[in-house]
This record gives sequence, C-alpha cells and structure tokens, in this order.
Amino acid sequence: MRRPVDSPYLVPSDGFFRVAEAATLPPPDAPGRKTCRRALKARVNTLSDLQRRLHADGRYAVLLIFQALDAAGKDSTIRKVLSGVNPAGCQVFSFGMPSSEALRHDYLWRTSSRLPERGRIGVFNRSYYEEVLAVRVHPERLASQRLPPVVDPERIWEHRFESIRDHERHLTRNGVILLKFWLNVSREEQGRRILRRLQDPSRNWKFSPQDLFCREHWGEYMLAYEELLNATSRPWAPWYAIPADDKPYMRMAVADIVVRTVERLNLHYPQLAEDARAQLEETRLLLERELDPEQPAAGLH
Amino acid sequence: MRRPVDSPYLVPSDGFFRVAEAATLPPPDAPGRKTCRRALKARVNTLSDLQRRLHADGRYAVLLIFQALDAAGKDSTIRKVLSGVNPAGCQVFSFGMPSSEALRHDYLWRTSSRLPERGRIGVFNRSYYEEVLAVRVHPERLASQRLPPVVDPERIWEHRFESIRDHERHLTRNGVILLKFWLNVSREEQGRRILRRLQDPSRNWKFSPQDLFCREHWGEYMLAYEELLNATSRPWAPWYAIPADDKPYMRMAVADIVVRTVERLNLHYPQLAEDARAQLEETRLLLERELDPEQPAAGLH
Repeated sequence: MRRPVDSPYLVPSDGFFRVAEAATLPPPDAPGRKTCRRALKARVNTLSDLQRRLHADGRYAVLLIFQALDAAGKDSTIRKVLSGVNPAGCQVFSFGMPSSEALRHDYLWRTSSRLPERGRIGVFNRSYYEEVLAVRVHPERLASQRLPPVVDPERIWEHRFESIRDHERHLTRNGVILLKFWLNVSREEQGRRILRRLQDPSRNWKFSPQDLFCREHWGEYMLAYEELLNATSRPWAPWYAIPADDKPYMRMAVADIVVRTVERLNLHYPQLAEDARAQLEETRLLLERELDPEQPAAGLH
Repeated sequence: MRRPVDSPYLVPSDGFFRVAEAATLPPPDAPGRKTCRRALKARVNTLSDLQRRLHADGRYAVLLIFQALDAAGKDSTIRKVLSGVNPAGCQVFSFGMPSSEALRHDYLWRTSSRLPERGRIGVFNRSYYEEVLAVRVHPERLASQRLPPVVDPERIWEHRFESIRDHERHLTRNGVILLKFWLNVSREEQGRRILRRLQDPSRNWKFSPQDLFCREHWGEYMLAYEELLNATSRPWAPWYAIPADDKPYMRMAVADIVVRTVERLNLHYPQLAEDARAQLEETRLLLERELDPEQPAAGLH
C-alpha cells in the first residue's frame, strides 16, 4: 500500500479531521514570502525533470485535484506550480457546471475521459468532488441530474463517497499517483480578495454573483468539506488541507508535496537492453566515422 | 436494491456457479426454432417501444454486455436482438485489442467513455471483462500494459474483480440498467462453426488463427469464465449464462431477459405539467382554427 508523504497538512484517514482546526495561515516559523518564491522555483525545476522521467518510464500518471472556494487561489496555484513543466507532458482540465451531455451520464463520466495517460501530469481544477460539494449545497442541481428512483435520497452522499473511494482505489492500483489539495482560505481573506476584484477594474471580469452565494452558505460548505475530506482521504489518495491565506506559502507547500511524492517513485531513464546497447554502439561508430573531417566523405563513395 | 428477473440462466451471486454444469443446449421442452424466431420478433417489437419510453423518461440507460468465445454468436445475437430498435437510441461498441492510447490508461478508461447516456440502449461486444479473460489466458498481454510495481501479481485478478464490481455498482446506482450475457457454446458446436468458416469461401474472412488458440486453451478459458461469473454476478449487475448451441433459442432467451428487465422499470411517457397542459390546449385550438377550411385563412389577414 502506498503511503502519503509526511506533511502537517495531510488529512488523516481516521475521520477526526476538523475544518475549524485547520490552519488558513502559514505557521509562525514559516519562511518569508521571498524565500517561499525561491523555494517554489526550485521545486518547479525539479518537477520539470521528474515529469521527463515519468514520461520515459511510462508506467505512472500523476493526477492533482484542486478544490477550494472561490478566490482561494486555485488557478494561480496551478499556473505557478505547473508553468515550467513541458506542456506536452501536462494537461489541465477545469470542471465547471456539467454540460447537458455530461448530465446524461453518471457523474464520474466527464472526468474519466480526461484522466492523464501514463507518463503525464494531469490537473483537475475542480472535479467530481463538486458532486459532494456544490451539488450538496445547491440541492436544485441534484434535481437537474435526472436521477432514477433507485437513488436513495437518505444515503446519496454516503454512496457518492463510496463510489469516489472505489474509483480512486481502482485508479491508484493501476498506476495513477493521486494527490488532492484543498486550498483552505479564511472567510476574511476571501472577502478581501473578492473586494479587490470589485475595486480593481482589471479584475472585475473575475467577479461572479456565485462568489456571494458561497459566503452566505459558508457554514454549509465547510460542513460538506469536512465530511468529504474525512470520507475520502486515504493513504493511496490523500487530501492535503493547505493554508491559503498567504499565496507564496501555499504554492510552495503544494509544489513541495507534489515533488516529494513523485521523487519517491525513484524513476530513472530506462536502461537499454543488451542487444539494443550493441546496436547503439555500432550506430555511434558509424556516425562518428561518417562525420569525422579526417575521413573521406562516406556518402560520396 | 434492484433484483434481476427470474431465469434458469441467471448466475447466482453465491459463488456456486459451475461452468461444467451450465447448459449449452436448450432444455428438452424448449419451443421449436420457428416458434423461437416468432417469439424473438415479438420481443424486438416490444424492445423498440420500450426504448422510446426509455428516451422519453430520460433517467435510465440500459447497458448490455456480451462475452463469449469465438463463434458463439455474439455478433449475430446483437444484430438480431437490436435490429428493429431505432438506431438513434441504440449504440453498439466492439472492444478488440486495446489501442496504444487505451494502454496508456487504466483498463476501465476505454469503455467508460462509451457508456450509453440516459434514454439509450448501449451494447458492449466484449468489454472490460476481457481484462480478466483474454488477458488472463495470454499473460504476455498483461506485460504490454506497462503496469507499475504497485500492482500485486498475487492479487491482480482479485483486485480487478473488485474494481469491476465497484464500477458496476456505481453505474447501476446512477441509472444504468446492466445486463451481462455469457453465450455458452460447447466445444463441439464451436468446432463445427469454425469448420464451416473454413469450408465456405464467403465465410473465410471470419477465420482468425486466434480461433484455434482458444480451442487449445479451452480449459483455462472455462476456468477464467467460472471465476469471473462467480465474482461479478450480483443482483444489480447479473450475469446470464445462455445456452449458445442453438442460435434461435439463444437469441430469444437474450431478448426475453432484456425485455422483461426493462419492462419492470414501468416507464411511461411523461405527463405534462398543469401549465404546459393549458398551453397545449391553447395551441391546439389556435391550430385547429387556422387549419379549418370553413374559416378564412388567418395568414392572409
């Protein structure tokens, strides 16, 4: 069984995680913002190298799931942690409201087709976890899913947690390295960030009336987060609850967990087999002779 | 919990199903071939009507999975049972050897994107069950899957059965009606059908050297079938082991189980809401007046 890397932000799988006790601020002894930025840069470089090994090895896929309330910093964290990795080995998908096509399938359908293939890093900006978050706080969305009467309304969330756990266990048993990040922003800091969107015309486009809905229903969201984190943080598919009030610290913390997790796979560029090695030597000699200025040009014979 | 329709061919979920005891021939009191063909035709008509209700209702999808050895009659059964249903409400996918793209994902990935949407009947001609059948009998195929070392070779089939059960439970909890058919042909009848392919030039194209492989490894295939049927026949996702030595009987038996299962959903065309009903009445009157030859043509006023 795979074990998650150590971190003060790892959500345990014993069911005792409490949102109210989770930090939204860096610890008092945290490095300063400048140090965090430098550390992030180092992690991004390492991650770029790790992705190349991941690709050469070709057995694992990495999937990072980000969930958070509005203005917690999902988009910028994804940008800062993944910019620097070869985009050919990296894919980010954002999951907003499901399309009418998606609603005609089970709720794992739309994300399943977007899973990263072996050798790649995939990112879900929001995910099937919205099915036990936004859908839970907006019950009218559940009604739009055209669920058949076999769905037991008393046990729907429990069943969804179970389906998600099963799905993730299947994926991780088949080569997906799964890391899930909850960017935990405080109500005050969120308020400040939304206000900045309203005051700064260049950020106005980011505003959505939905931002206010989540502030009005803060308690319900926190309860939904607490339940889902406890129900679905497992050693093979851990959740990390990252303090999100300080962006440089948050980004460094996320990058650090990703890098340490992938490093533990201990990936090396594949070794050539004996006969391929002999062929390589032969080709090397041939090309060296051909390109040697001391030798007559081979192509002219 | 949904219960499967009664049938002598239902594979129980108690683990006591034995392939060696499963019939490959119709029972002695079975109707004659002509009666079977007539009965099939009636079932196909009913199924066509049921699919229209399924579409109007829009909450359920039906998924039929067919597994069998070569020459058992999968293709012709699918053709005979589904021809007559509106192709707009029906989709058949055949799963041969996985593509290199599919191999770069977990083994449920390629079928997941082909799941039928609500209101439709989907058919899988072969499926993820090949992962515990052909892959089990051809271990070299497993090697090509580039599985990471986290896959425990001692428990791989057990884990695959578990993943498949979890996947099917998730689907059926979310509106998929799942029926699985194993077309059980005897070794002798299979031999006769393959020989016919070799003797009849118009059927030569159906021959594949793979046909012989499965005859050489008959015992291993039967063992793999027995284990998978016991491990994955569940009340919500039942397997039916259909005698396949007589094609008209086999097709009727399959159609009968499909029709009885869908009938039990008791689907009706949706009723209009009160206000939509009033609008309908208004529109009806308007059109009746407009199209009444006694009245002056409204469009000319």
